[in-house]
Amino acid sequence: MELGMVGLGRMGANMAERLVGHGHHVVGFDPGERARDAASSRRIVTAPSLVELVAQLLPQRVLWLMVPAGEAVDSTLAELLPLLSEGDVLIDGGNSNYKDTMRRAAMLAGHGIHYLDCGTSGGIWGLKEGYSLMIGGDEAVVERLRPLFAALAPDPDSGWGRVGPSGAGHFTKMVHNGIEYGMMQAYAEGFAIMQRKSEFALDLHQVAQIWRHGSVVRSWLLDITANAIEHNPRLEGVAPFVADSGEGRWTVAEAIDLDVSAPVITLSLLERLRSRESDSYADKLLAAMRNEFGGHAVKRSE
Amino acid sequence: MELGMVGLGRMGANMAERLVGHGHHVVGFDPGERARDAASSRRIVTAPSLVELVAQLLPQRVLWLMVPAGEAVDSTLAELLPLLSEGDVLIDGGNSNYKDTMRRAAMLAGHGIHYLDCGTSGGIWGLKEGYSLMIGGDEAVVERLRPLFAALAPDPDSGWGRVGPSGAGHFTKMVHNGIEYGMMQAYAEGFAIMQRKSEFALDLHQVAQIWRHGSVVRSWLLDITANAIEHNPRLEGVAPFVADSGEGRWTVAEAIDLDVSAPVITLSLLERLRSRESDSYADKLLAAMRNEFGGHAVKRSE
Amino acid sequence: MELGMVGLGRMGANMAERLVGHGHHVVGFDPGERARDAASSRRIVTAPSLVELVAQLLPQRVLWLMVPAGEAVDSTLAELLPLLSEGDVLIDGGNSNYKDTMRRAAMLAGHGIHYLDCGTSGGIWGLKEGYSLMIGGDEAVVERLRPLFAALAPDPDSGWGRVGPSGAGHFTKMVHNGIEYGMMQAYAEGFAIMQRKSEFALDLHQVAQIWRHGSVVRSWLLDITANAIEHNPRLEGVAPFVADSGEGRWTVAEAIDLDVSAPVITLSLLERLRSRESDSYADKLLAAMRNEFGGHAVKRSE
Amino acid sequence: MELGMVGLGRMGANMAERLVGHGHHVVGFDPGERARDAASSRRIVTAPSLVELVAQLLPQRVLWLMVPAGEAVDSTLAELLPLLSEGDVLIDGGNSNYKDTMRRAAMLAGHGIHYLDCGTSGGIWGLKEGYSLMIGGDEAVVERLRPLFAALAPDPDSGWGRVGPSGAGHFTKMVHNGIEYGMMQAYAEGFAIMQRKSEFALDLHQVAQIWRHGSVVRSWLLDITANAIEHNPRLEGVAPFVADSGEGRWTVAEAIDLDVSAPVITLSLLERLRSRESDSYADKLLAAMRNEFGGHAVKRSE
Repeated sequence: MELGMVGLGRMGANMAERLVGHGHHVVGFDPGERARDAASSRRIVTAPSLVELVAQLLPQRVLWLMVPAGEAVDSTLAELLPLLSEGDVLIDGGNSNYKDTMRRAAMLAGHGIHYLDCGTSGGIWGLKEGYSLMIGGDEAVVERLRPLFAALAPDPDSGWGRVGPSGAGHFTKMVHNGIEYGMMQAYAEGFAIMQRKSEFALDLHQVAQIWRHGSVVRSWLLDITANAIEHNPRLEGVAPFVADSGEGRWTVAEAIDLDVSAPVITLSLLERLRSRESDSYADKLLAAMRNEFGGHAVKRSE
Repeated sequence: MELGMVGLGRMGANMAERLVGHGHHVVGFDPGERARDAASSRRIVTAPSLVELVAQLLPQRVLWLMVPAGEAVDSTLAELLPLLSEGDVLIDGGNSNYKDTMRRAAMLAGHGIHYLDCGTSGGIWGLKEGYSLMIGGDEAVVERLRPLFAALAPDPDSGWGRVGPSGAGHFTKMVHNGIEYGMMQAYAEGFAIMQRKSEFALDLHQVAQIWRHGSVVRSWLLDITANAIEHNPRLEGVAPFVADSGEGRWTVAEAIDLDVSAPVITLSLLERLRSRESDSYADKLLAAMRNEFGGHAVKRSE
Repeated sequence: MELGMVGLGRMGANMAERLVGHGHHVVGFDPGERARDAASSRRIVTAPSLVELVAQLLPQRVLWLMVPAGEAVDSTLAELLPLLSEGDVLIDGGNSNYKDTMRRAAMLAGHGIHYLDCGTSGGIWGLKEGYSLMIGGDEAVVERLRPLFAALAPDPDSGWGRVGPSGAGHFTKMVHNGIEYGMMQAYAEGFAIMQRKSEFALDLHQVAQIWRHGSVVRSWLLDITANAIEHNPRLEGVAPFVADSGEGRWTVAEAIDLDVSAPVITLSLLERLRSRESDSYADKLLAAMRNEFGGHAVKRSE
Repeated sequence: MELGMVGLGRMGANMAERLVGHGHHVVGFDPGERARDAASSRRIVTAPSLVELVAQLLPQRVLWLMVPAGEAVDSTLAELLPLLSEGDVLIDGGNSNYKDTMRRAAMLAGHGIHYLDCGTSGGIWGLKEGYSLMIGGDEAVVERLRPLFAALAPDPDSGWGRVGPSGAGHFTKMVHNGIEYGMMQAYAEGFAIMQRKSEFALDLHQVAQIWRHGSVVRSWLLDITANAIEHNPRLEGVAPFVADSGEGRWTVAEAIDLDVSAPVITLSLLERLRSRESDSYADKLLAAMRNEFGGHAVKRSE
């Protein structure tokens, strides 16, 4: 099939390459010349502008958006809208908030444009291993694009599916990421406990390797963890600073909106916030309070 | 090799069967006649008493204990000790507390008996898929028993290893279970959020299946989760009551002893405690306090 | 001074009565006839409609809104706006979201109406003990209304103050309530631990009374707790069901927006959500997972 | 009455002074000469050794131990035991673990010595404001010492009481401190949220002062907090490093032993552990994992 890939960053370029490898025709666009050049060197045809990208595709076009969630999606849609024809399909493969997705789908439906949301998991390993795809939107449209999803997924018949109406794909991906936060934090805490237990002088990479085979906690994240500590088990040079990219926050907010108590996912997010506080006011106040009521000495900051 | 299996419950019988299947000679014992009969029907030779079990093995004997952690281990050791000869090897394959293990190893060393601790993961699936084995104790002894570990593990060269001195195996297994609690809770919360989001009418089994292929959260626990909800997605008839078997508590205590903050593992344990409180005093008091200061009506219990 | 009180529920009627007791002239309105009658019997002059309420006050009027947060505030403002004159002052004394407050203040400023937000703490005890008032808005306007705040507060010179511009009062009250959740939960957990420790057969009311004098944990909430358990220490008949009224959720959301990790306030909210889940899907799934991987029996629901 | 105070540190010296001020005869002992000299200058009679302390008291003696919990209590008891006579009373006023207390009381009972445990709250403010005393042990003995407790407490008839048998006093104090952790953390988080909200430029000391009068969150800890930030609202020079003195850990362990979920008290402890981790392995591993699966850049440590 023919597909336009909008956004040739880490994820977009890899997905384009995987599609090309499965015999699809992909034209890619990215506002950055470097990203376009890099994609060209990976045998992806590129267009220098959205206008030309759209011009190179035959209706009913399929355009896959792989741009940062938020403003970039809205501005790209605004730019694309006048260029598209009724029956064209737009797929947002990024980590958009599902409420934005529902709003956008309704807006585009008014112009006869189909809008699918495709939660995409797999990270930089998806190029080789395939992506897990959670799709929301019209069932017939999803069915029409089956060859594309089958190529991106690890197997034609598994690792992808339409999970519900518009928004359901991004919702499912949001929860997926919330779970991911919790799992990562569980591993991180466990390894931290083992690392601190100096009397056993555990080789954490060895432990990870043992667990990868036959244990209850084996997982792809554990495989990754084993890689991460293979050559640097003490993680020297790595700052204890953990970023977050939004879905965790949304999952926490959604859980509360639904009156579901999700303490582990929630705490996993808070731990990331905490990792970025170098000079916590709360902790300083606790130290000052202890000094005030009990005369306990306060440690001075440097 | 020749091995005596003490304890023919779910885990012990499966492990004996796997060893027999790999050509080892296993004599099993269990105090329960039923368990012995069941093992016999699975082609495991059984002995009617510990005395006869030991008598049927040639020194230097290898005895694998697969009995409940705690008192049962100590009483079994007390019964075995007079029957053993110097150089015999005892392996505790259960979920003993690593501090008990260190105490027992020191005691047995005084009698010339080798004591290995072997944290064993894999559950009832280990019979077919092999077990993940984390071993603590003397390196030469572990090496001598290599054929046994190689048979129990998923592969001769992976999924098992000596991780450190006596106690290190059970310590590692303890942390493994702490991580397991955290991962399970992360999935449980995520699925609960999706289940509550009725507007998308998600098919949770389908979502689990999609995630099993290519996603960042794919894992063996997710495979299991998919099984668990395949035929009963609403989990009808299942009470929201979650037991715990001790290692989670020990992991939490150990983390605090080591001054490591492990909020997600800790909260996972607390959620299990919470699941068993049908009439929380804390919640009742909160309701009563709200009534007292704000006049907010209290819901009456039935 | 002269003041119109809009909303004669538990809080509004009490505040009106306290103002009257301090010599102010209050005209009250409530859409409910019962509420008006009840107020009349407490020596509060009432008006049968907003129109007549406004008509009975001389410009520059002062109107205090004590209506439920949310829609009720907006609809009351819409109804009042055409009745007011430039220079009139509206005070929202309820638990409005501070962002709504900022929006409303800007809207009303466009009409020459002053809008103050007054976070009000004290519950049903405020009538006798006075209210703690956190005020946001124009400094000169706050100063002009000093006699009113002085009457409502426990003392003319303490327990009230302008804390910042529009929104700052409700923001401060929101955080106040977040802290309140955390404190309540801390007490509730502590008392639950003591209640469970049957071997000491503690008299929880006695313990609360001891702590009320001289201890580090003495507080007004503890005074209240002592009341709550005085005659019903086991809290018989009280359902373990804890409502929440919004500010806790906002505090959690605000903390995350500000990248501040506030685990205790957050968990206090989640515990309230949890108290209302009678049949947690997460817990059921955990039980089902344990059964699936370890063969652990599942408790059946009734 | 006559009383020997063993331990003239911050707490012991203050309590001795308060007793003297109420007309009791106190002989104090401390192994440190400085502490003895300081006590002397506060009109407390001191003895240069335990032997002489005991010699200066008439049977049936009353000795109050105010020494650090743990080894110091056991070694002091061992030293005192041969010096005492049947019917003498020992009171442990420190923060001992209640299980140690029960063991010690049983041991001393075998020698005819009464042992009371007196959980003592009030910190350095107790000297002026009186202490809150939670007493465990024999009822008749407690009654006999009523004048001493009445003098130490804020009022003769309130702020103290026998809460149960041996151990109950320290148990109650342990839970008291668990609650204290939770309350402190709740305030700390709330103030941290307000401090971060720069757009409102809140004066945190002013907010604390407002809340101290009439609000639901007023408390002695809030009074203290107001003091702590009065002259240094940004807490400049205070390191975000929070110590803990044991009772929090015991409360968490006890709650888990009792199968009571106490998330807020537990998290309050974990936050203190966290405040002392300058280079969290868990956070480093999370950063490394994100890099591994998603190519997200890792921040380098300096």
